[in-house]
Amino acid sequence: MFKWLLATAKGEAKMHTATRKHILFNTLILVFYWLFAGHALAETNDPLPSWNAGKSKQSIIEFVTKVTDKSAADFVAPAERIAVFDNDGTLWAEQPMYAQLFFALDRLKALAPQHPEWQDKEPFASLLKGDIESALAGGENAALDIIMATHAGMTTAEFEQIVTTWLSTARHPSTKRLYTEMVYQPMLELLSYLRASDFKTFIISGGGIEFMRPWTEAVYGIPPEQVVGSSIKTTFEMQNGQPVLMRLPAINFIDDKDGKPMGIHQHIGRRPIAAFGNSDGDLQMLQWTTAGEGARFALYVHHTDAKREWAYDRKSNIGGLDKGLDEARAKNWTIVDMQKDWNVIYPHEKR
Amino acid sequence: MFKWLLATAKGEAKMHTATRKHILFNTLILVFYWLFAGHALAETNDPLPSWNAGKSKQSIIEFVTKVTDKSAADFVAPAERIAVFDNDGTLWAEQPMYAQLFFALDRLKALAPQHPEWQDKEPFASLLKGDIESALAGGENAALDIIMATHAGMTTAEFEQIVTTWLSTARHPSTKRLYTEMVYQPMLELLSYLRASDFKTFIISGGGIEFMRPWTEAVYGIPPEQVVGSSIKTTFEMQNGQPVLMRLPAINFIDDKDGKPMGIHQHIGRRPIAAFGNSDGDLQMLQWTTAGEGARFALYVHHTDAKREWAYDRKSNIGGLDKGLDEARAKNWTIVDMQKDWNVIYPHEKR
Repeated sequence: MFKWLLATAKGEAKMHTATRKHILFNTLILVFYWLFAGHALAETNDPLPSWNAGKSKQSIIEFVTKVTDKSAADFVAPAERIAVFDNDGTLWAEQPMYAQLFFALDRLKALAPQHPEWQDKEPFASLLKGDIESALAGGENAALDIIMATHAGMTTAEFEQIVTTWLSTARHPSTKRLYTEMVYQPMLELLSYLRASDFKTFIISGGGIEFMRPWTEAVYGIPPEQVVGSSIKTTFEMQNGQPVLMRLPAINFIDDKDGKPMGIHQHIGRRPIAAFGNSDGDLQMLQWTTAGEGARFALYVHHTDAKREWAYDRKSNIGGLDKGLDEARAKNWTIVDMQKDWNVIYPHEKR
Repeated sequence: MFKWLLATAKGEAKMHTATRKHILFNTLILVFYWLFAGHALAETNDPLPSWNAGKSKQSIIEFVTKVTDKSAADFVAPAERIAVFDNDGTLWAEQPMYAQLFFALDRLKALAPQHPEWQDKEPFASLLKGDIESALAGGENAALDIIMATHAGMTTAEFEQIVTTWLSTARHPSTKRLYTEMVYQPMLELLSYLRASDFKTFIISGGGIEFMRPWTEAVYGIPPEQVVGSSIKTTFEMQNGQPVLMRLPAINFIDDKDGKPMGIHQHIGRRPIAAFGNSDGDLQMLQWTTAGEGARFALYVHHTDAKREWAYDRKSNIGGLDKGLDEARAKNWTIVDMQKDWNVIYPHEKR
């Protein structure tokens, strides 16, 4: 390239003006191409810049390439390109505790003055003393009590406002960052890459559907109608002549484990061709996705980076990955090694 | 136009060739424009050809125009352009009985040989004798028994196949047409018009969600993930190492009346800006839609055409429109008079 430019400059003096102009013009075009288009091309050639080269990245790109190639045997029509993502631990951090539990705790503290009875009643008493472990020792019932006390008793519009306000101010205990800043940059790139390849991306989370919807569009580019999660019951009421939906203290649906294929079927009505999770809670979703005909893709995010994030799998109470890890290895699903596969964890670390 | 052409032809002989060619060329362009572009323009100018000019058609076009005009005070961003449609009686015919009840009846007859106990057990005994009225005299419980006997006990994939097969062969008792041929042409045009204006169209029906999803994409252009309806519970099971969802004989959700705003909130997570129904079962959906801020649109299809379709409203058991009609009049919602507003009912009548 440089050699050619030099040769052109040397020969210039001898030439007819028209020829000179012609060569100059072509040279300028080539320089422009090299300066801009070439670079732009290099960038668009890598839809996953935060992913290091390796088996994980390669498996994603190979899958997307074959299902979007009209001449390939594995081609899938755009309407059927459904990709489902777990949220906690797959799209954003979930340690030392799900963000929604921090939310519940903050809300419990805010509501405590109106509930003097909580001082002597478990799990509230322990929680208000900051003893989360004792509070959660009550198991599922304790968790339900906490959720109902903090997530019910208001209209859906009021709850949306409470979540939005909390997320714009609450900070993670160790990183001191907003929870929405603790999303995984490589997964944001993956979501964009899939959507650019005409996939429809959905969240299928054990977390509360109404806890996610207020922010998933801004943070992940996933609109509320493509968010599936656990829910409590609502009731339709008239308040001052205006219809409202009141949130009731009763479970409607638990979108976890067995519930994930049910949630997918209920909300989407077609079987996804790609599923992304990080825990045993996602196993049935990955089984359901890969059991369909044609090309299928399943990926587990394996939390292996104790330094930049958290390292946990088989024994973890939050986001435990045990059976799922064995099945992923046996079935040759993609297992992302966060430490090795991701050169960046959070968006603020981007180079 | 014709006068101008004649004048041009008369003057032609006296002119210089170049001028003559110029005028001829312009004339040809004008003739072409008049012959093709003009007609095409007239067609594309009317997105609702099966709707007669009048208040109903005008109200739809005015609403769509103002929410899609960036400079208008009522402009709505495309992501928020959610339009919800009831199905039975709004998008397709529902008389003398919902298509899904005909389906249940046909299935009951097909299953009867395996169920000798039905011969002496209501509501089955009456139904098998063709006495639908007596069978449904048992009210909600009778209806539930019929649904559970015919809609549960198979995998979701098997049920999809059963519905697809039935719809491709079953014929309406009086018109002898396929049920999917008894959709309303003006509503198909309305769906297309809204989607062309960047609306996302959803079905919110009291009918079974899994009874609609196998065909709504082909018939209405509405994909399964944008269909909301009543549902029964499912359970996730392994059959020969393959995961399946089994349909259980237990109600999960009734997407009717109060249930419609709940179903909308659960599946879409945002309030629609336009809602279309035909019965009191849609009233809460229309209330919920119009209670939001900014421009809102509510429309009732009023079945007034006893000759081309059916005429029914206040007293009808199927698709009764009583309270809703009063509220629509009081609140100035659009009320479609099928007889006067629609020049075509079904697609096969199209001119």
